[in-house]
Parts: sequence; structure tokens; C-alpha cells
Amino acid sequence: MKTEPHQTASHGHLVIIGGHEDRKHDKEILTRFVELSGGENARIVVITAASKIADEMWDVYDRAFGELGVRQCAHLSLASRQDANDEEKVRMVAEADGIFMTGGDQKRLLAIIGGTTLDAEMHTALKVRGACIGGTSAGASAMSGHMLAQGKTDLLPEKGAVSLGAGLGFVHKVVIDQHFSERQRLARLLSVVAQNPYLMGIGIDEDTALVVERGRGIEVLGEGSVTVVDGRTMNTNMADIREHATPELIDVRLHLLPAGSRYYLPEDGDTDAKPMPRSLQDFLENVTKRNPIS
Amino acid sequence: MKTEPHQTASHGHLVIIGGHEDRKHDKEILTRFVELSGGENARIVVITAASKIADEMWDVYDRAFGELGVRQCAHLSLASRQDANDEEKVRMVAEADGIFMTGGDQKRLLAIIGGTTLDAEMHTALKVRGACIGGTSAGASAMSGHMLAQGKTDLLPEKGAVSLGAGLGFVHKVVIDQHFSERQRLARLLSVVAQNPYLMGIGIDEDTALVVERGRGIEVLGEGSVTVVDGRTMNTNMADIREHATPELIDVRLHLLPAGSRYYLPEDGDTDAKPMPRSLQDFLENVTKRNPIS
Repeated sequence: MKTEPHQTASHGHLVIIGGHEDRKHDKEILTRFVELSGGENARIVVITAASKIADEMWDVYDRAFGELGVRQCAHLSLASRQDANDEEKVRMVAEADGIFMTGGDQKRLLAIIGGTTLDAEMHTALKVRGACIGGTSAGASAMSGHMLAQGKTDLLPEKGAVSLGAGLGFVHKVVIDQHFSERQRLARLLSVVAQNPYLMGIGIDEDTALVVERGRGIEVLGEGSVTVVDGRTMNTNMADIREHATPELIDVRLHLLPAGSRYYLPEDGDTDAKPMPRSLQDFLENVTKRNPIS
Repeated sequence: MKTEPHQTASHGHLVIIGGHEDRKHDKEILTRFVELSGGENARIVVITAASKIADEMWDVYDRAFGELGVRQCAHLSLASRQDANDEEKVRMVAEADGIFMTGGDQKRLLAIIGGTTLDAEMHTALKVRGACIGGTSAGASAMSGHMLAQGKTDLLPEKGAVSLGAGLGFVHKVVIDQHFSERQRLARLLSVVAQNPYLMGIGIDEDTALVVERGRGIEVLGEGSVTVVDGRTMNTNMADIREHATPELIDVRLHLLPAGSRYYLPEDGDTDAKPMPRSLQDFLENVTKRNPIS
């Protein structure tokens, strides 16, 4: 039986998770992902292509979503780009209300799905049908247009230590890192921002999600915080120093958004809206696509 | 033989060290401390009162300064406040060109010397005679008027986790933390700044020194960096959250000053001075006392 593509009233959501979200107990983040996908009747597909142990990953999420009452949850197993252009696989995305990308390696995920028909169908799902796209760990980093691909720093930011790749582009002008506080990755994120000042760095803690509602606002869920590093007004000597040296960074803006934080852009005619610091409003307008940073 | 108080041409320097400065090999930081104190002929005293193993501390620095050619280096051993008001001990400070405070516990140091005649004589040494005051680890934290006394955070900033005490006050409107990158103390420093927005947070890495020349400028020496956290333009919900919760922080300014950085305020008539970002100039004017933040 063929089902028709599903159209919701939603603006489309991203659930960007910093890894190690709870899958066994209260499942706060996965519960929200299911709700934003339409609840127990949502059709959910799980993309495991980032992982080399795709079947084990699927088992974990099959059980978790099952425990949350989801009736239609399917493994979208993609071993190759051929798979990601396969008509039947693409139809699974076209008919999905929620698309979830597991952890693994974001480079592997992009090598398999980047630029395929399935990739395009995911954009349609989000932007045209208002579906929900979730991703954890590698699946989170993969969501931005410029993707943190690999690299690590010692204690301090370092020139040339981190490399970017082309990500899926559900959000632009940002770069997303995960396991952020747990793996002490601020130096890594500052390394990226120092070299690429128009990318705002987003660092998401474990068991923590940045939920983006397109055109509306953002929310932070879970146990940790989301750190935003804005280098647009920064001064740096990055261009002049040698590889692996520590750059001077002056006037980086840092925001810490703990779980429970909600920020919504004022609607037309919404005169009660709480005034918002300018730099946070810029961030919101960009990630929600209300007014992307050019 | 009594020597007269020494008067130098210097504006007075602070050498604020993040702990674990090299004492055995090139001794870059201790070498600079000796130079700023006047070189091999300088009279140097070592205050070990922060430490419970004062004699062992003294042995370390006696050897290190000896290897640097210092001829007159003395242990200023202070076991009590009586010692810190003792005429002979105070005279040792009055005649010193360089005063060095070892690590240990800054609360112990302040309990012994805070508000004593010796404390006052240290201020005279710095401000009137242009002496050099160095401090490492606890001896660094002790230098500010508001002193980071104790407390730690887990991965994220936390309300009520860190307590301040009254420090020696060689610099004001700042709070100094040490072993900064090595012990991942940004969350601790942000906890202080979130609660005390007019204190700029200064985090100094190990084997790294922030050298302050009063009225002139600053320099970063050694192996790591100095991190400055400026919360003056920050928005936060700190006042409204419960104890131990993570605060929302919006628009914290962060500066990373790697070793080798030098920033000097323009002198009168100095038309070649490189323009400096406003927030860095504020920081400089404050720590150098050219124009302390009110």
C-alpha cells in the first residue's frame, strides 16, 4: 500500500542532539522528537549511515521509539550512494514525518548521502512538508552547511587543527560540535571560528538538544547546555601566525544557553515580546531561517 | 648593615603566573621576574606563607633564583600575623626590589598577611618604589582585590559554586584564576563573572605569566595563554535561578591572549599607536591603573 507524502501544519523542526541522549529512561529528547514528528502515529525513519555498526544502532532506536509508542518506525539502511539514490529508499524519506540520524562519523554519512536524491528529499521533508529532522552526535554535526569534519586541539585553540567539510545544510553560517562540555571542545570550536569568523560555533552537550523551529525560535532540552561562540566582531591575528600556533582572539562573544531556555522571535503584531539582546536575535534569525545572515 | 629602600625608574610590575612555571630549564618567566626586579643585583624576597610546606617551597626558589645569578635572595618566612607585623620582616619588604609569592592556598596567604604592615609595605614597594611583585598559583589569585577563594564547578557554570574573598588588591575589578586550561576552569571563572559582572575574569595557564606594567601595558609570557572573560555587557538570569543551576549567559566577551602578546596604551603624543579594540583598552586601562574601571 502506497501512502501519500504527509503534509503537516508545522514550520519544520530540527532536533540537534549532542550525543548520548537518554534512550532508556525518561527519554526526554527522543520524546520531543516523536512529538514534533506528529506523535505515536508518525512515520519515523532512522538513518544509520554514519555508523559502521548500523544494525546495532538501529536496534537501539527501534527499541527506544517502540517504547515511546511509535507504531511505524523503519530502518533506512544505506550502505552506498546507490542506496541513497534508490527509489524505494527515497520514498521512505518522502513519506516520513520524522527522520533521525544516528551517531558515527559525519564524514561517512556525508560521503554516502551528500548530494543524493535522498538528501534532496530530506530538504523537501523539512522545508516543504514541515517534517522533523533529528540527529545526534555525528548526525548533529552533519546538519550544518559547513560541517566540522575532524581535528582536535590540545588545551588551546590552534591554527589549522580542525578541518571542515560540506554538510547537509539544514542550517547555514554555523558549525556544530557535540559532546561539547564533556569532551572539553571549546578550544576546538574557537579554532574553527577564529579561522571562519562568519560561522557561529554551536557546541551541544551530551543528552542535550537544540530544537530549532523554522521561522519561529529555538529551545534547549535535556541535561546540559548549548554554547554559542560568535566571532563576527572578533579581532584576531589568525592570518599571520604559523600553523599550530595559538591565535590571539579579542572580543569573541559567548552565549551559554542552559536546558530550559526558549527564545522565540516576535511574530508580526506581537507587542508583548520580551526584548532580546541583538546578538542573540541575529543567531535566532539565522538558524530559524527567518532572516539568514547573508 | 642596613640598606636604604630602593627606588627604581620603573612604574612597578606585576608578574602574575598561572602555576607550574619552569624552575629548572630555561626559566623564562622567573628570568623576566628577575630582570623586572633589577637583574642579578636585585634584592629578592620569597613569601611562602600560602604553603604548608614553606621550607620546601623556599628551597625550590632559592635554587632557581640562584641559578639565575641573583645574589641577594631571602626567605620571608611568615607563620603568623605577628610575623607579618614584625619590624624586621617588614623591613625585608621595604628593602626588596622583587617580592615573589609562592603557591599553596590563597586563603592561607591572606589570613596571614591581609591588612598587616607587611601588606601595606608591599603596596608601597609596588606603587611608590616601582618594585616588582610576582606570584604563582595561589600567589597569583591573591593579587586581585576580589580574590577567587574556593569552589569548583562540574562541566558548566553554576550558581553559588565559587566563593570570593578579599585579596591583596594590586589590581581591582578583576578576579584571577590559575592552572586555567589545564584544569579546565572556564566554567568556574564564568560562574564568578555571572554573579559579579563588573569583575573581569582572568584565567592564566600553567607556565604562563601575565606581566602588568603599571600605567603602561601588559604582556603574556611562557607556554600558554591568558583568557579574559568580560561580563559587563552580559545578560543573565543569574538572579532568578536556584543554587547550583546553570545560568543563561548572553553576550559574554572572551579574549584569548597567547604567549607573545603585548599590548601597550598609547603614550601622550604617541601617534603611531595601533588602534586597539575598545574592550581590550578598557581591560588594559583597568589592570594597569591608567584609568581604573569605576
